Amino acid sequence: MSSGTPSGDRYLDFVNGPVGGLLAKRLGLPTPVRLVRNGDRAAKARPVLVGAAKGARLLSALAVNFAGQHVVSFYHHDAESWREAAEEHGLMSGRFGERSGRVGALVFDASGIETVDGLGALYRFFHDSIRAVCPNGRILVLSIPPESAGTAEAAAVQRGLEGFTRSLGKEARRAIAVQLIEVAPGAEAAIGSTLRFFLSPGSAYVSGQVVRIDAESGQYASGTTRRTVLVTGAAQGIGAAIAELFSARGDQVVVLDVPAMADKVAETATRLNGVGLPLDITAADAADAVLQHARSCGGFDVVVHNAGITRDRTIARMERAGWDEVMAVNLRAPLRITEKLLAGGGLRPNGRIVCVSSMSGIAGNPGQTNYALTKAALIGLVKRLAPAAREAGATINAVAPGFIETRMTAAIPFMVREAGRRLNAMGQGGRPVDVAEAIAWLADRDSYGVNGQTIRVCGQSLLGA
Amino acid sequence: MSSGTPSGDRYLDFVNGPVGGLLAKRLGLPTPVRLVRNGDRAAKARPVLVGAAKGARLLSALAVNFAGQHVVSFYHHDAESWREAAEEHGLMSGRFGERSGRVGALVFDASGIETVDGLGALYRFFHDSIRAVCPNGRILVLSIPPESAGTAEAAAVQRGLEGFTRSLGKEARRAIAVQLIEVAPGAEAAIGSTLRFFLSPGSAYVSGQVVRIDAESGQYASGTTRRTVLVTGAAQGIGAAIAELFSARGDQVVVLDVPAMADKVAETATRLNGVGLPLDITAADAADAVLQHARSCGGFDVVVHNAGITRDRTIARMERAGWDEVMAVNLRAPLRITEKLLAGGGLRPNGRIVCVSSMSGIAGNPGQTNYALTKAALIGLVKRLAPAAREAGATINAVAPGFIETRMTAAIPFMVREAGRRLNAMGQGGRPVDVAEAIAWLADRDSYGVNGQTIRVCGQSLLGA
Repeated sequence: MSSGTPSGDRYLDFVNGPVGGLLAKRLGLPTPVRLVRNGDRAAKARPVLVGAAKGARLLSALAVNFAGQHVVSFYHHDAESWREAAEEHGLMSGRFGERSGRVGALVFDASGIETVDGLGALYRFFHDSIRAVCPNGRILVLSIPPESAGTAEAAAVQRGLEGFTRSLGKEARRAIAVQLIEVAPGAEAAIGSTLRFFLSPGSAYVSGQVVRIDAESGQYASGTTRRTVLVTGAAQGIGAAIAELFSARGDQVVVLDVPAMADKVAETATRLNGVGLPLDITAADAADAVLQHARSCGGFDVVVHNAGITRDRTIARMERAGWDEVMAVNLRAPLRITEKLLAGGGLRPNGRIVCVSSMSGIAGNPGQTNYALTKAALIGLVKRLAPAAREAGATINAVAPGFIETRMTAAIPFMVREAGRRLNAMGQGGRPVDVAEAIAWLADRDSYGVNGQTIRVCGQSLLGA
Repeated sequence: MSSGTPSGDRYLDFVNGPVGGLLAKRLGLPTPVRLVRNGDRAAKARPVLVGAAKGARLLSALAVNFAGQHVVSFYHHDAESWREAAEEHGLMSGRFGERSGRVGALVFDASGIETVDGLGALYRFFHDSIRAVCPNGRILVLSIPPESAGTAEAAAVQRGLEGFTRSLGKEARRAIAVQLIEVAPGAEAAIGSTLRFFLSPGSAYVSGQVVRIDAESGQYASGTTRRTVLVTGAAQGIGAAIAELFSARGDQVVVLDVPAMADKVAETATRLNGVGLPLDITAADAADAVLQHARSCGGFDVVVHNAGITRDRTIARMERAGWDEVMAVNLRAPLRITEKLLAGGGLRPNGRIVCVSSMSGIAGNPGQTNYALTKAALIGLVKRLAPAAREAGATINAVAPGFIETRMTAAIPFMVREAGRRLNAMGQGGRPVDVAEAIAWLADRDSYGVNGQTIRVCGQSLLGA
């Protein structure tokens, strides 16, 4: 489903029409704002308002990145330091005031806050500016990992920012996405791709997340050659959307799916100008076959473990086969393939591995003890393999989708579907492309500072653990 | 509110009556089971069914602890190893079968699972036994911290157990509480107080949690002398319930609250045979005053930072005073008092510090950017101070209450209150005593292996981050 097509969410369509919007407001019904995604006509660049607390460490890195993207910025009266950093990099920046009009994003550098008193700057900035953010806007708070703080007080207030941003995400509404970006000392130069993604329409359905950027000793050549991207379970659904996005960005996609869907595999591969790889990833020799394919094309640049199945039953009613199949597809296969590729040199330098986990693996879900186990295990897998990936010059991360509109969710009974759609800060389901966009960010050549993490693509779902 | 009084939850009372229960079932309405707590007549000891995967490391420690508590156990046919461990410690244990009847708890030792195949034992045990658990039963899965696993596969499957237990908690219903207990290698001897708590009626409203028990070099003398317990904000509400529980267990409580409530402080202190300490914890010299009091009574054994206030407003409407007051009471005060007590020797050996955080600090809450920040900061504080506490022979942890029935929640509009009450796996709100019980567990002399953690007391709230 491309992002331009109707969502299948009739309520969303209705309240975003002139009559429906008026009626919903009169009746006091929720009025979720339609998300603007990459490629939508409504997507346009707006100024960014920058704020900072004393001792902010990231302004210079921000200015460097903004200068490369022709960002127009304002600064809050507390953030004179931004004006200096902006000027140094030839960036236009005016002082924010009542007549500045609306902005597309707020970026607040909280990395210097070390005391409870210092949090006052955070209050002032957001108290003054939150109303200036237009619908589909973005809010980023930049911080440091609490464990790298110098004192217990600093660690506590930096950790506290997470409660602040999660609350802000829930009260901002109007499709405004809010994230906390923890930048480890020394990792300032590695924030580029993460800034770009979270300020872009691509991150429309990612909100309430904490992203960590770690210090990275080596700097990778960015490179512009065509990359080879393996996507498992790519014949249709979310997997096909992932393959589509990489293909649209000029990458060579390898469309892997089960032999029973060989026709669909070939069709998708042809459409995306890629390569089809019909393969049962649960077969004993599957990892070898994948490695062999990797070698035949000089190694993969990106591997996306998207293939996954459900066999929902309460544990008392679940058959052994339903347990085993879910284990085999969702967990054993990505585990074996990843280990094989890492050990066998199946990844090119600056490689990327992304696993598709699930909200169910984070929060648990009745009837999904098997599925949730595998999806939680992937969170553990990327955390555990991060150092090994780093040694191989690669990264490994996961995304955890929430309620994503697919053919599968379209078949859910109306009331359950409605609950799934509305129980998040965006008041609507996501689309396969939202998952694809998050994966593309993690797979970005410049995302080498993001490793071992799991990022939810859930519109800041209210559900969680 | 003692646990014997009506809950104020009329729906819960209704569906637990004979007519209401029948009617609710006919209409397909939810029928939450009334929780059985310590002291309730319905509370009685029932047998425990033990299961284990190959390589289980905790059976011997389990047997030692069960032998001390006269637990009757059954073993699953997969778990012959339990029979041996039980016999060695003089424990009665019969093989579990169809005629074993209902059990009060399932305990599964998953610590030996290192492969995806090995998870089959987990499936078999719960598939066979889940129906045998009676209402208000308990389920414990014992595991190892994923980072201490020997291989990536073992780390992944051990982490996967979290998705399994969270799903099981949501599908078990009937007031059955489910936890994952991670026991670090070498910490086997430190599981006693945690096993006791999570198998007791005291843990009725704690479910879906992951508790970690760390290896501890020194072993503390258990001691039976009367302990001195400081509780802030203890004049009424949850604070008073905490003070009541410690007092009922024979401890000397120091009831701290604001001078404006001096009468109530004196009344509560007298009732509990404790000491009143009217004090404004936000005053500049408050930490000194607390330390002075600590010294005057030979040091505190337990400090509970319970005092907290809300000043709810969206950030745009929030006044500076509402921000500052929340920061001062909820964050700066416990920070200063804790640092002062740790540095000034205000804690006796084997001391305990417990902070009261909140679900809001974990998930965020609209209108609570200030409150959620402070409650998230406490999570960061206990994590950060855990090593320092350990060096001082102490521990520091936090509890994060969900929807707890208090005078405050009784004033919430009906529909909002109903949502708060029902949106958790127990289908009902908790009581102040539930928070107190969790704190008493963390404060137990034998809980020295639990440090730096935050445990939710939320009936496995569906809401989260």
